[in-house]
Order: sequence, then structure tokens, then C-alpha cells
Amino acid sequence: MAKVTFLPFRKSVEVPMGSTILQAAVAAGVQIQSTCGGRGTCGKCKVQISSDGWVLACQHMIEQDLTVELNVQKDAFERKLSLNHLKDIMIAPSIRKYHVQVEKPSAKNQTPDWERLLAALSNRTIPFNRRVAANLPETLQKAQFRVTAVLDENFLLAVEEGETLERSYGLSVDIGTTTVAAYLMDLNNGTVLTSGAITNPQHVFGADVISRITYASEDSDKRRQLQVKLINALNEIIAQLCEAAGIDHQEIYQAVVVGNTTMSHLFLGIDPTYLATAPFIPVFRQAVEVEAKELGLRILESGKVVVLPNIAGYVGSDTVGVMLSTGIDRLPGLSLAIDIGTNGEIILAGNKQILTCSAAAGPAFEGAEINCGMRAAEGAIEGVLIGDDVELAVIGGSKPRGICGSGLIDAIAQLRKSGIIEASGRLTSKADQLEKLPPAVRERLRNDDQKSEFILVWSKDSATGEDVVLTQKDIRKLQLAKGAIMAGIQLLLQEMKVSAEAIDRVLIAGAFGHYIKKENAVSIGLLPSLPLDKITTVGNAAGDGAKIALLSKEERTRAEALAGRTVHIELSARRDFQTVFMKALSL
Amino acid sequence: MAKVTFLPFRKSVEVPMGSTILQAAVAAGVQIQSTCGGRGTCGKCKVQISSDGWVLACQHMIEQDLTVELNVQKDAFERKLSLNHLKDIMIAPSIRKYHVQVEKPSAKNQTPDWERLLAALSNRTIPFNRRVAANLPETLQKAQFRVTAVLDENFLLAVEEGETLERSYGLSVDIGTTTVAAYLMDLNNGTVLTSGAITNPQHVFGADVISRITYASEDSDKRRQLQVKLINALNEIIAQLCEAAGIDHQEIYQAVVVGNTTMSHLFLGIDPTYLATAPFIPVFRQAVEVEAKELGLRILESGKVVVLPNIAGYVGSDTVGVMLSTGIDRLPGLSLAIDIGTNGEIILAGNKQILTCSAAAGPAFEGAEINCGMRAAEGAIEGVLIGDDVELAVIGGSKPRGICGSGLIDAIAQLRKSGIIEASGRLTSKADQLEKLPPAVRERLRNDDQKSEFILVWSKDSATGEDVVLTQKDIRKLQLAKGAIMAGIQLLLQEMKVSAEAIDRVLIAGAFGHYIKKENAVSIGLLPSLPLDKITTVGNAAGDGAKIALLSKEERTRAEALAGRTVHIELSARRDFQTVFMKALSL
Repeated sequence: MAKVTFLPFRKSVEVPMGSTILQAAVAAGVQIQSTCGGRGTCGKCKVQISSDGWVLACQHMIEQDLTVELNVQKDAFERKLSLNHLKDIMIAPSIRKYHVQVEKPSAKNQTPDWERLLAALSNRTIPFNRRVAANLPETLQKAQFRVTAVLDENFLLAVEEGETLERSYGLSVDIGTTTVAAYLMDLNNGTVLTSGAITNPQHVFGADVISRITYASEDSDKRRQLQVKLINALNEIIAQLCEAAGIDHQEIYQAVVVGNTTMSHLFLGIDPTYLATAPFIPVFRQAVEVEAKELGLRILESGKVVVLPNIAGYVGSDTVGVMLSTGIDRLPGLSLAIDIGTNGEIILAGNKQILTCSAAAGPAFEGAEINCGMRAAEGAIEGVLIGDDVELAVIGGSKPRGICGSGLIDAIAQLRKSGIIEASGRLTSKADQLEKLPPAVRERLRNDDQKSEFILVWSKDSATGEDVVLTQKDIRKLQLAKGAIMAGIQLLLQEMKVSAEAIDRVLIAGAFGHYIKKENAVSIGLLPSLPLDKITTVGNAAGDGAKIALLSKEERTRAEALAGRTVHIELSARRDFQTVFMKALSL
Repeated sequence: MAKVTFLPFRKSVEVPMGSTILQAAVAAGVQIQSTCGGRGTCGKCKVQISSDGWVLACQHMIEQDLTVELNVQKDAFERKLSLNHLKDIMIAPSIRKYHVQVEKPSAKNQTPDWERLLAALSNRTIPFNRRVAANLPETLQKAQFRVTAVLDENFLLAVEEGETLERSYGLSVDIGTTTVAAYLMDLNNGTVLTSGAITNPQHVFGADVISRITYASEDSDKRRQLQVKLINALNEIIAQLCEAAGIDHQEIYQAVVVGNTTMSHLFLGIDPTYLATAPFIPVFRQAVEVEAKELGLRILESGKVVVLPNIAGYVGSDTVGVMLSTGIDRLPGLSLAIDIGTNGEIILAGNKQILTCSAAAGPAFEGAEINCGMRAAEGAIEGVLIGDDVELAVIGGSKPRGICGSGLIDAIAQLRKSGIIEASGRLTSKADQLEKLPPAVRERLRNDDQKSEFILVWSKDSATGEDVVLTQKDIRKLQLAKGAIMAGIQLLLQEMKVSAEAIDRVLIAGAFGHYIKKENAVSIGLLPSLPLDKITTVGNAAGDGAKIALLSKEERTRAEALAGRTVHIELSARRDFQTVFMKALSL
């Protein structure tokens, strides 16, 4: 006899040597899930034993005293994943694999292959899938009727030869206006196997969404062209990710996509025309599921491509992704999240409400439309400190070439602090103010009838051989950008009837958040004036949302609920917007 | 005031002139279906008034005393259709059209187009259709938001500009091994607008199903080739039918297809390999629904292609079509139906049971593999009478060229009657028997060591300049064919434990049935010995079944139930088959 102890229940039982763990569990009155009647095919009775790791309870024979740890989560596929510092999720994707022995046909059992397969799966409600059925006889024959079925909920996606339970993959995609990122995920353990990012190939039709909408609106061929460019680029990434991870694209069973509302429309080939002009009407906002074949996305043909729900014309599924990955609706107190890109999407959650708005920040934070602006790449000034002279932090440590968004915020914060910029945003010409400045700093200010600018880098020290300057116009652009975001924040606070001081945390999403210096962002009035420890950066929270929705069907369903209960505030429709915006411009 | 009487309830009410019929109905306490709130858009409140025919109750103003006949069928689209002499069905297809006014967007109503459309349809449960959504904004704009939605049950197939309720079409297809027939149907009134038939283009890969299965089994490209050939041919028919009827292929919203099990597999591109060898396993037997786009069938892309259920490897959806169109399960007493082609599918229905089997008749009844055999075309002998000499009926009245199935049955029945063929099927050589024959007949028998045949047409009278003969081998072929069918009939009767005398009616389906002379079919033992008035031909009952399933969702559902409760008897698996078959060979 051997003693078997079941954890976490601490129930013990003595059973004869050679009994299975499943038999021991029955004897101990402990329930282990199993749907194949102990044939070792359903894989549902996986348990963990200290000596051998994971085993099938129905197959493992007991040869000594044993401690068995039961999976008391929803089922054997669910494990904990620590995706980011804010939130843990249970891994329970809608994709499940089942290894089964299909009964062989005979004169006495002329049941069609499809029906024998469904019988083996103990599920006769699975709808017919022509594509899977097409090659079923060959698969069954080759595998001697031992196959692994891939299900997406109740839909049969594929039948694979033999036992392939350990191979189960999915793709999470974040379609940004500028950058498209894709993550190849292991659905068994929630890890990112490999990931890749490229410039959105639609950029040749314009950097911003409006120019792309304009192009797509011309005719359906052009709309299709934008869609195909994007999908071809994704297919290239997929091919690279598959090669790097050593998997076949047909082993990617599902893709979850987030993006702004325009990107969602273009990705699905849906006319975005009326997103460009007031009243900014999208064609759809709910979550959309399309067969991969239909879109031409090179994952398993029958696999689903899920686009998470949008909220409004300018608050897309990427914002829903931020909600999912931050779990903002479940955090205690009052939370503010900001995803800064060309548009700043703002979420305010608390008091059982979720409010969002989109602030037209313009591309200043991305370094665009700024005289010496550039993206956060080598040679970009990312930090500025003004003392006796100007000190710079440059990406890559090389000679400076231009300034990126975080550098811009630093520069303006520091210039304001030293009095070079007035509260109105004007480069000062007041003599008493100028006198206070250290000479090395003072001589950098060129403020006359011709020009009004501050020289960050003298030509002799720059990578381009020309001065790197910050112009009066640049300062105005940044004021407009940060003013738009602050106005959005203030109107959301107003709408919820709470004050900025009541905010318990500010979550900054997006790549931009990584580089930002919180104190400077607060000091220029981009973020509310709060203790800095209340401000946290959360990385690519939109992309993380796509990962979560892929790994957990429950979270994917929750995304719909979140989008449904979110109240969108259209800033352009509010009479008080201009007033609040004007006030928010000052530095 | 005007008096309005509602039939069939005979309820009367007095209402002010100018009231609508809908208002009068409310006053009379009579219920009229309406989902658009009396806006004249849903079309559900159609009623018949003696003066004007069909009108919308919510729109028609009462200007005199009136008698209103209510549609007490399930709804306004259901009308009676007399499809054939056996059965009436209600026209209630799964396709419905709704004319609606969609609310225009505004700053106060930023609801997405899709949701505003669903609101106009008062149905928010309609799942998203990417293809319809893709062009929705343009359609709405062009039509000034007055559109007609096409639904297949709860699935939105298309949105058309303006009011198109009167245009609603479907396609019924009968895929025979030899001939493919298609019928363009008006879904509003159940009429066949136009129809066409072509030779199944797969015939280049073999006349019979086995050679096609063999070809398709070689690899998936060849299987795909067979599918594409068939679908291309159907697309050509569709183009012709559309042109003839003056409609666009996108106005065909659904196709219902019947065919034998092999044709169903090949049409859907599903591996038929194991249908060719015992135990004859199909991949599927249930009804299959596939999007037209997925198959490449040129009807509306989002339209469904429905393949009716098969019963077994050699009893296909064409047999289910026969059941539907004959309503064989609902006829009183005991009914036998036979669809004679290369295989003879036999149905025996009664005592709340439905039994089927497939008898491998071979192609003799189609004139194939017969020395002078030919299809029922011009120059084919279709009738034979033996008196002082041989009298022939020839299709088209021209010189005879060969003999078709019905001529063959006649010839053999007459030759047996005159004693030229013995009960065993042997051409007689008995002197006493030969002496009884008129000389002109006697000299037509060539029965010696070299040859054993009967000359139907002397070379001088034939179209080919050669004798048209019936050989001993031909007679054997026909014996095998009719023996197989009779054995099938007898085994079904045995299985149900009833005698042939108990049969209340015999229904002969298929083109062949049209030409057959009942008395000769009975006398050679192809049909049971029954009073001739119990034997009826029912035309292309399989194709009629496809029409019915297209015109009535209820009947389509019934097809599944019929297939499900039908018990298939596999003749080859029965030990007693050979004995019964041998007995059934004699003439």
C-alpha cells in the first residue's frame, strides 16, 4: 500500500501499489476533472506531483508514497502569469487542445469521420468546419486515429496528427499609427516567445490618421490598398517571429489586435471616411471577430482574428487595452491614465465610473513639427538641465542632432524655471529678468525682431554643424499639446465632479512615458500637480491589453463590458472646452 | 365612418374615414404583426383587401367600407405554392428583407453606423458582418439613409439602397453525377424564374463516381480541380440565368444544393477517398452551410450555400430532396420511392419509419454499357411492341440510332412475353418456342454458337447503317440492374416486416421515370407487382426538394430531421442479400 496526500486539501488515503492517482482521488473523495473516462486522452486530469512534475492522474501509477498537488483553478490550463507590476491574470485562453483517440470505422460503424471525431471529443455541438473536414480522412489515417483537436471555444479550428498539447500559440498585435508591434505568445504558459515591431507601412500615405482617411475615402481600391499594405507587413513580421521561435504559422491559432479606431477600420477594410469630419462617426465600435483567411492574415486559416472594441471615433481598442492591462476599473480610489501619442487618450476611473476623452495633442510629443524635433533615437536630446550653462543628456551619448519629446518637456520646464520663458510661454525680453541669468545661458537667447529662439546646442557642438534651437513657435506647439491634454483631464474631473487632488494615481502609458521626467511634466502642467510617487509609467499598456485578451477569454469578454460601460466625453462638442483649454496653456 | 370587416375572424368595427387599417385592427381587437411602429418600413403588416390586393395595413387609409383578409399564416411573406401534385408548401424562406429609415448621425448622436442600422431594424442581436460594414457609410449616404436590409435568419447579408423588397432571389441546385441542374427562384412568390442544366464537367475524369473519387484521392490539388470545375460550371449557369431573368448575381441571397454523397464531398472540396472502398465512410453527413465567397460560388458573397444532409455513403442529399418534395413521411399508409440512376436509391416509408438503401444498378437504365445503348436523345428507341413484327417508338421520330433505358425495359418485357427470352433471361433456342413466332419476328433472332442477339432494327432501316441489336449480354446487364433494385426493395420490406402487397403507392423519381412504361417495368420485375394506378412518376423530385428547402426554412430544418430519423440499410453488409438478389434476377 502507498499513502497519497492531496494538496491543497491535505486529504490522505492509502491505496494499493499500481493504482492510478485518479483512483486514489476517488478513494479520497477528492474531485479531479476528467472527460475521457480515464483513457488518457482529454488531458484534463493533469496534476502536479513532487517527484515527476505534471502527470495525467488517470495514467500515472503509484509506486511509492506521494504528494499530489491539485490544480484548483478553473482547469488544468490555467496558471498564473505575472504580466506586469499592476496586475496578475489567469491564463485561460479561448483556445484549448484535446488529445483524443478516434474510433476506427468498420462495417458495423459506418459513422462519418466528422461524427466519430466529435464523439471522441464528447462534444456533438461543435459546428461543422468545412476546411478541417476537407483533409480529415488523411489526418486520421496518418495518425492512426490518434489526433489533437484545436478548439476555439466551441469551434473546431484544426485537427493535428498525434499529441501536440504542448504547442499552442497566439499573436497579439498593437497597430499604432506610427508603429506596428506584434508579440508571439505561448498560450500554455503566457510567455512572450518573441516579438517584433515595424513602422506602419501606411505612413507613405501620410503620417497622421486624417491623411490616411482622406486617401482611403477616394475609392474602395485605395482603402483596400491601405489594408493590404498593413496585412502584408504583419505577415512579414509573423514569418520572422515564427522562424525565430521555430513554429509553423498554422500553430498560431488566434490573433488579438488593438489600435486606434481609424487603424481598426483600415485593418478590417472598413470605410473610415466619416471619422475625419464632425460628427466623427465610426462604422462600428464593438469587438469584431473575423476568420484569418478572410483578412489574409497568415496564421491558421480558420483561426480567429479578434479586434478589441473601440469606444468612439478617437478612442480606440488601444485605450481598452490600457484599461485591461492596468485593471484601472478595479483599482481602489481614483485613477487617471494617459496614453500620449498624436492623440492623447485619457481615462478617468473611480466612483464606479469610467470616463474617457481624446485630446488632439498633435505630434509635438513625438518630436514632429518642432523646428529641431526628432524621434527618440540616437542623437536626440532627451534631458535638459540649466545651471551656469545648459547641460544635455543625449541618446547614445553622441553629439546632439535634435530634440525629442521628453527633451522638449525638460527644456521648457527648465527655461521656465530660470525665467527665460514667461508664464504666457513668451521667450522673455525683460531686462531685469535677463540680468539674473548666468552669461553662458543669457547669450543663448536670441530674442529680437527677426528671431525669437533659444540655442540649446551651438553649431560647433552639434552633429549637424548647425545650431540646435528651440523656437518661440516650438514652445507654442508644446503649449497647445500639453494644454489639450490638461484640458481633457480637467473636463473629465469636472464631469465626474472630483478635484485633481483626489487622484490616487496617474498611469502614463506608451513608449513616451518611459523617458518623461515626472517633475518636469508636472511643472509645465502636462500632468496634474500631484506628489510624484503617485505617477507611474506602465509601458506599452495597450499592447499588454492585447496580450491579456489573448491569454484570457474572460478578460476578452471583460474588454467588451469595459468598452460598453465607458462614457466617452467628446471635447469638441463641449461649450466649456475653449475656456478650459485657454487656461491650460500657461506654463 | 366606415365599416371594416376582418377575415377570417369575421370581426367588424366602425372607424372614422382616413383611419389606417392598422388603427381599425387595434379598434377591432384583431392582431396584425408590425415591427416598425407603423412607419411603413417593416413590411410585416401586409394584408389583402378586396379592392386593391395587397397593402400595408399601417399605410392604407380607409375611404369606404372594406373587407380585409388577414394573413393568418406565420407572416406576410408566406403564401401557398403548388410546387407539384403531391405537396403544397408555405413560402417562408430564411431570407427576409426589411426596408428601414436609418437615423442620421449628428453631434448628439455619434452612434456608429452599424448600431444605428441595427436600431432601425429593432434587432440588436444581429452579429457584425465585416463585408456589409465595409461599404455601409457610402450606401447610407447615397440612399439618404433609406435602405433595405437583407437578412438570412439573424445574419445580415447585405444592405441595399432604397426599397428593394420585391427583388429577392435564390438558387436551387441539383448536382447529379451526369447532369447539373440549377433553378433561379423568386423568393417572394416561389416561382422558378428560369433554369438551366449542363453535363457535369467532372465527367472528363470518369462517368461514374468511383473514377472521380479515385482521381480526387491522388492528391489535394486534383480534389481541388474537381471542385473548381464544378463551381466554374455552376458560375456559368448562374451568369446565364441572371442575364435571362434580368437580375444581378448579388441579388441571389442563398443557394440550396442537393446531390449524392460523393458530389456533396466534391462540391465542398472534402476528401471523398474512403467512400470508394468498404466500409464506405463519408467525412460528414449533416447539412452544411458555407459562405458563398468561401466556395467561390458567384452569388452574393455573404450568402449561404446550404448543402442538404446526406444519409450514408451512397444515399445522399438528393434522396433527402425526394423525401421533402414527396412528403413521403407524411403520406398515409406505406409508400415506396425509387430514384433510378447509376445507383437506385430506394425509400420505404410507413409505420412511422423511414428506411433507405442504395442498390448498385449500374448504368444500364441510362443506356450505358449496353451494346447499342444510348441516352434518351433523338434517335433513341424509347418504346418497343412485338406483334407480327417489331414496332418501335423513336425519340424525335427519326431513324433509330440506338436504344435508351425505357426502350430497353420495353424490349425485354415484350421479348419475354413473346417467349423469345426465357425466365432465366436466356434468348431461347427451343424449337417449339421458335415455331410459335411470326416469321418476321423469328428471323430477327440470331442465336447460334457465334452470336446470341435479337435484331431490333435491320441495318437498312437504321440511322447508323448497322443493325440495332439487343445482345444476350445486354439482357444480363439489365437483369443485374433490375435485380439489384428489386432486391433492395424486398430487403427494405423485410426490414419493416411488411409485404409488397401492403404498398399503397410507388413514386418513381428522376427523368427516367417520365419515359418508363409502368406495365413493362412491373412485368420485368423492376417494380413490385402492384395495380398500375398505385405507381406514379414524380419528376425530378430531388431538385424539387432543393427548391422547397430554399423556399421554406421550416422544410430545410425538416430535411435534417428526416435525414436523422432515416434508417439506412447497407445491402453489402447483409448476409441474405445475395440470396434475395439471385432470386430477383429472373424475368
